[in-house]
Amino acid sequence: MDLNADLGEGFGSWSMGDDLALLDVVTSANVACGFHAGDPSIMRRVTQAAAERGVAIGAHVGYNDKPGFGRRFIDIEPAALRDEVVYQLAALDAFARIGGSRVRYVKPHGALYNTIVHHEQQAGAVVEAVAEYDATLPVLGLPGAAWLRLAAERGLPVVHEAFADRAYNPDGTLVSRRTEGAVLHEGTAIAARCVAMATGEPIEDSAGGSLRLSPGSICVHGDTPGAVEIARTVRAGLTGAGVTLSPFAP
Amino acid sequence: MDLNADLGEGFGSWSMGDDLALLDVVTSANVACGFHAGDPSIMRRVTQAAAERGVAIGAHVGYNDKPGFGRRFIDIEPAALRDEVVYQLAALDAFARIGGSRVRYVKPHGALYNTIVHHEQQAGAVVEAVAEYDATLPVLGLPGAAWLRLAAERGLPVVHEAFADRAYNPDGTLVSRRTEGAVLHEGTAIAARCVAMATGEPIEDSAGGSLRLSPGSICVHGDTPGAVEIARTVRAGLTGAGVTLSPFAP
Amino acid sequence: MDLNADLGEGFGSWSMGDDLALLDVVTSANVACGFHAGDPSIMRRVTQAAAERGVAIGAHVGYNDKPGFGRRFIDIEPAALRDEVVYQLAALDAFARIGGSRVRYVKPHGALYNTIVHHEQQAGAVVEAVAEYDATLPVLGLPGAAWLRLAAERGLPVVHEAFADRAYNPDGTLVSRRTEGAVLHEGTAIAARCVAMATGEPIEDSAGGSLRLSPGSICVHGDTPGAVEIARTVRAGLTGAGVTLSPFAP
Amino acid sequence: MDLNADLGEGFGSWSMGDDLALLDVVTSANVACGFHAGDPSIMRRVTQAAAERGVAIGAHVGYNDKPGFGRRFIDIEPAALRDEVVYQLAALDAFARIGGSRVRYVKPHGALYNTIVHHEQQAGAVVEAVAEYDATLPVLGLPGAAWLRLAAERGLPVVHEAFADRAYNPDGTLVSRRTEGAVLHEGTAIAARCVAMATGEPIEDSAGGSLRLSPGSICVHGDTPGAVEIARTVRAGLTGAGVTLSPFAP
Repeated sequence: MDLNADLGEGFGSWSMGDDLALLDVVTSANVACGFHAGDPSIMRRVTQAAAERGVAIGAHVGYNDKPGFGRRFIDIEPAALRDEVVYQLAALDAFARIGGSRVRYVKPHGALYNTIVHHEQQAGAVVEAVAEYDATLPVLGLPGAAWLRLAAERGLPVVHEAFADRAYNPDGTLVSRRTEGAVLHEGTAIAARCVAMATGEPIEDSAGGSLRLSPGSICVHGDTPGAVEIARTVRAGLTGAGVTLSPFAP
Repeated sequence: MDLNADLGEGFGSWSMGDDLALLDVVTSANVACGFHAGDPSIMRRVTQAAAERGVAIGAHVGYNDKPGFGRRFIDIEPAALRDEVVYQLAALDAFARIGGSRVRYVKPHGALYNTIVHHEQQAGAVVEAVAEYDATLPVLGLPGAAWLRLAAERGLPVVHEAFADRAYNPDGTLVSRRTEGAVLHEGTAIAARCVAMATGEPIEDSAGGSLRLSPGSICVHGDTPGAVEIARTVRAGLTGAGVTLSPFAP
Repeated sequence: MDLNADLGEGFGSWSMGDDLALLDVVTSANVACGFHAGDPSIMRRVTQAAAERGVAIGAHVGYNDKPGFGRRFIDIEPAALRDEVVYQLAALDAFARIGGSRVRYVKPHGALYNTIVHHEQQAGAVVEAVAEYDATLPVLGLPGAAWLRLAAERGLPVVHEAFADRAYNPDGTLVSRRTEGAVLHEGTAIAARCVAMATGEPIEDSAGGSLRLSPGSICVHGDTPGAVEIARTVRAGLTGAGVTLSPFAP
Repeated sequence: MDLNADLGEGFGSWSMGDDLALLDVVTSANVACGFHAGDPSIMRRVTQAAAERGVAIGAHVGYNDKPGFGRRFIDIEPAALRDEVVYQLAALDAFARIGGSRVRYVKPHGALYNTIVHHEQQAGAVVEAVAEYDATLPVLGLPGAAWLRLAAERGLPVVHEAFADRAYNPDGTLVSRRTEGAVLHEGTAIAARCVAMATGEPIEDSAGGSLRLSPGSICVHGDTPGAVEIARTVRAGLTGAGVTLSPFAP
């Protein structure tokens, strides 16, 4: 099983999360590319540290919006979005190469991630950018997302992820964050769910039923309080259950 | 002989210069990379148009300073500058590749170009960035510049340029812009000097003596009034004198 | 009657439109505040030139989006938008004061202008910002806009504008730009419509009927080809018809 | 005696320092204005919290450089710098007014603070901006600085500050940070020096001699590890010694 988290989300003198601690836990790092967060020197440091630990580097591309941390929808024209994604992807890949690795996959960030679940034009723009840059790069996202359908049609490898700490509806969609209980906070319970997901067992859905998810990667959070501790508990739970952790991307 | 000019210096809804007209004149295009000017969509358009015309694409890297158009010295730490140059170079190269070409050389812009003539630490940072990204990339600049010396020591191919419309001191340095007569404005006279430079003849220096320059490329301006007309006159003069125009970079 | 146009939309080394020429035509200037366009030095120059000519200065506030020139909807939280509007308004007012005038009204720009016609939360944010800064400042916009209704409820003076070169539906709304004939391009025809609007006569609507608009200000464009020439024709038409031109704002 | 510290230095989702804790310690807050740090919503929150506590609000103006946190010299033209300072000052003052207070003084940040100690043109630009905005505003800085001399010549009230945790040379200048012992780290020792400064007693200089400083304000740091704890120790030391703490600015 693969564990992924968002990293490299500082900017200049501002830090966010504990990149080095998380790199000892996850097997795939979604690295910010300087548009919603990150900057060239942070990109270098994080990709180099990831490469040294055998952690796969993913391009965490986002809207060009540092004031909003990429968390606000921007009604950007698809062609401009496509070009911004190419730009970010290429810049990160250079630092990955210098550090001895490469960008191994693409996972959009924040509002862009949410938008291209349903916004066909922006979804197509992101897919086009990845395909133009390297048509063998896997894309990582939620099952059912428009952009993953378009990516598959375009021939890109598609990998589904599940969220370690989110409640699921019986149909496999996420329970809205506005609903009580949508986010799990207790490390042991989160780890137990991850073990179930990783071993092909069902988890309990929000209606009390059982739901079988078969993710190619599990996403743990990196920038919430206690994030590193929870991530460590998840990793310990998985390895304790005999699950081998390794990047999904070759 | 090679003719180079700065292109792709618009930003979003703002334009600067006439990129397409200049691409029919020059053989090498110094393309802005989104830090002092340019943006991802402009970079795509200009690199594609350059590739279609057989014009060599150079990375016109600059300080991260759109408000100042990269024309103000910034006392940035060398490591941060190095990383910013890698970032710009890689992003431009992606668009060049998508357009069917590659970045063929590096020429810094504005205040960065001027600074690394003498600022050893920033000069070293730019050289290090180019070498890290692709140690076979030529660098283009003024004879005597610190960064070209460091580039040569690092094994990068070094190419010298001359300015079509600038007066030269007897020692081969540029006459300061603050001096009367430092910039030539008359197309025919500029073209005649370029023909001299391209055919191994001396030009007249600021003291009335004769000065032999042997540039690998001649820089024409792209964004001043009448720039395109002057550039066309230079090209016509050179071809009329039997000089073959082609990119200096392979 | 008042004529307004967008001004000060350059940025650093990039220019847009001919500010000084337009300032000799209009009576109210919507001056960009550095978020979608403009910068501190442009704001100083334009407000000073406006003050010298007796042209009223309006704050042309926009989304924080220079790459998109404020023309893309951003799903910003209302409180953050409110604070960005206060920031812009105050900064422009300082330059207006230094130039011997004040900001006399507020007219949002581009995507923000269009959004707050219907987006109640962002509309409320803009109104709140204006009221907090100066509850006596008039706001200028399209009849029927949500933000003008909220502004009136908040006690702000509300002024309606009409567009000199846009076709109108029989119900007084604008014909969509995607419809053939939505924009008039002929100066004399545009001027004739402005004279009608200014003298209480009806104009012809898109269905051939007659429509009476009673705007407090007429908007002419500043940054399209021929904009200055059309604006001059409008002004000449109005003054030739005996209409006195003066700012709507005291 | 007055205690000042830098506040409001977060940006969007990134935080820095503990603004609310510091506001319970200091009597003057140097609030970032959105150019090197800060954003409109942070400016609102900090100025409102300061106003509620009777803490004087100062404009902590800086270079337009978030990637470098305003800590890098930029060779900006004086007129452009002047306009950027006006812009920042006015924006902050609006939030101060909305919160029930006003900007009471100006203290530049980082590289700008250091540059205008000696760079006459940039010093003059900052002074001109303050005088244009409000010629009664006090300026706060290091004794001997060029900009304070120019400010005094311009008629601005000048206030000198001392640094709580910096070693001083016998001539009253700061010991360079590159020198061992240049920065004090022990709260009790720092507090004792502040008590001496506040009660007219000499402190020990770097050569072991005694040096009498008579600052109008003492600067404590806000964003270093342990900063809040040290600031509290200083405050407790001063009040324990019978020193009354209140803003230097009216």
